[in-house]
Amino acid sequence: MSALIKLNNGISIPQIGFGCWKVDKATCAQQIYDAIKVGYRLFDGAQDYGNEKEVGQGINKAIADGLVKREELTVVSKLWNNYHAPNNVKLAIKKVLSDLQLDYLDIFYIHFPIAQKFVPIEEKYPPGFYCGPNGWEFENVTLLETYRALEGLVDEGLVKSLGISNFSGALIQDLLRGARIKPALLQIEHHPYLTQEKLIKWAQAQGISVVGYSSFGPQSFLELDSETAKGAVSLFQHETIKAIADKHNVSTAKVLLRWATQRGLLIIPKSNKKERLIQNLQINDFDLTEQDIAEINALNLNLRFNDPWTWGASPEIPSFI
Amino acid sequence: MSALIKLNNGISIPQIGFGCWKVDKATCAQQIYDAIKVGYRLFDGAQDYGNEKEVGQGINKAIADGLVKREELTVVSKLWNNYHAPNNVKLAIKKVLSDLQLDYLDIFYIHFPIAQKFVPIEEKYPPGFYCGPNGWEFENVTLLETYRALEGLVDEGLVKSLGISNFSGALIQDLLRGARIKPALLQIEHHPYLTQEKLIKWAQAQGISVVGYSSFGPQSFLELDSETAKGAVSLFQHETIKAIADKHNVSTAKVLLRWATQRGLLIIPKSNKKERLIQNLQINDFDLTEQDIAEINALNLNLRFNDPWTWGASPEIPSFI
Repeated sequence: MSALIKLNNGISIPQIGFGCWKVDKATCAQQIYDAIKVGYRLFDGAQDYGNEKEVGQGINKAIADGLVKREELTVVSKLWNNYHAPNNVKLAIKKVLSDLQLDYLDIFYIHFPIAQKFVPIEEKYPPGFYCGPNGWEFENVTLLETYRALEGLVDEGLVKSLGISNFSGALIQDLLRGARIKPALLQIEHHPYLTQEKLIKWAQAQGISVVGYSSFGPQSFLELDSETAKGAVSLFQHETIKAIADKHNVSTAKVLLRWATQRGLLIIPKSNKKERLIQNLQINDFDLTEQDIAEINALNLNLRFNDPWTWGASPEIPSFI
Repeated sequence: MSALIKLNNGISIPQIGFGCWKVDKATCAQQIYDAIKVGYRLFDGAQDYGNEKEVGQGINKAIADGLVKREELTVVSKLWNNYHAPNNVKLAIKKVLSDLQLDYLDIFYIHFPIAQKFVPIEEKYPPGFYCGPNGWEFENVTLLETYRALEGLVDEGLVKSLGISNFSGALIQDLLRGARIKPALLQIEHHPYLTQEKLIKWAQAQGISVVGYSSFGPQSFLELDSETAKGAVSLFQHETIKAIADKHNVSTAKVLLRWATQRGLLIIPKSNKKERLIQNLQINDFDLTEQDIAEINALNLNLRFNDPWTWGASPEIPSFI
């Protein structure tokens, strides 16, 4: 099992979790069940991943079979862009909990700092980049209004901890000026091509724990047919990473994950292979040297694979860069 | 005189203005007066520049001498970080207008998306990075609250147009969700080492006019003893810029400014030399080719000289990067 990290609200959660992004619906329930079996206790899901019913099935079967208790799990979801208006936040949490068949979430993030126009659940769910029949449209609701609606969910006991995802330092700074409950977590894209050193240092100094996603860099985006990802050298094949892996006699994947946890990050790798899943839970059994870390940090290219600019809406949505 | 650019509120302002940053108080009034004489009609000042009294003296002398009428001028100031609370916005505009000895501003920007703790004017003015005797402290006021106070100044007739400076696309997007009066202008650092292509395209698509500052790149920051600036190749000496300048038989400075105006930007170069001042007003008398522009765009390094991270407050203030 993974070591625990204590959040700024006193709640402890596993440093290593299971990422539910792109987990196939057909196999999802079983994968979640198996992940619990091998020791995973944090499941990083989202409305947008389109598989929350199946995630819930896996979790509830594991609970029913006595593998784990609900309170031993950290169940995560993320509010999608179309539900930013306070009333729609309520609608969204109801849908999420009903899909998961759970009474509460451990962590609820704002998925992106972008308020797309509301789309009724009956019309399309999850809506993705769909904003209705007129193409891209936005909702006149600020991030602080959305965040305050999330604070309300904590008051109601429906959510334990709040997070923000894909927010820049400047956005978080502004949010902190108006937030009543400090966000406990920031989830960001993080790999050696996008090291985000300053953002991480600043967030950690604010007491916000940082979760890195896409720890393997371009790998996660190849199946989305991303041109940027196809143009980047695979981190599994990268000479620097390979040399460090060889030196320590571990896999390149392990180097990439350990580099993140040694920077104090939480991680949520995903794998379809059981053996890999088990390995990913055990990455903290060796240490990279300061020299190794410095060499990996030096690979930074500020190369972001998950940039809304590439969502087909530009120039209607600003780039993160 | 400079060509005019029509803002999203119907007001037209000169594309080329005079930047008041780092203009020495001792010579400032005369420099402003001389600039009006040679044709400048826009003066880009700020509380933080510490020379608004002198800027006002130059302007008022030129008006008194009949060189120009007030309504022919575009007078700009910027709200400093310590005055973000709505009540302090009122205090700030009163101080600015009293220093300038004018009844209204044409443009008032939020200078940075950072709310430092209030410091009374009697204690220190302008306060710069000073937040009181306890070091860095912040004010619990959101950017939208500050912006709404600026909207109030427009209602009162004290300001004609609103601007934001050093804001990212994501911050502006959030501001737009709550703003009643759309910002007319975005002022950002802009030079071949920091081309900000996506931000500019997005802002222009929103109808927000973009003003580039520090058009000469590192040059502006050498006198601030910036290590980053000292480590960068001067754009005046850069081979690519020199080759393009030679080809067109113009100065490298002219290439840098024309590159900005051909991207649709407004610019605010500063010079202590009268001849240079006159030249800067005439940069639009030739055109760079598409190939020239592409070559200059390719110099982008995402290299930012004006990053709050370097203000000596890190990790208390997030980086812009």
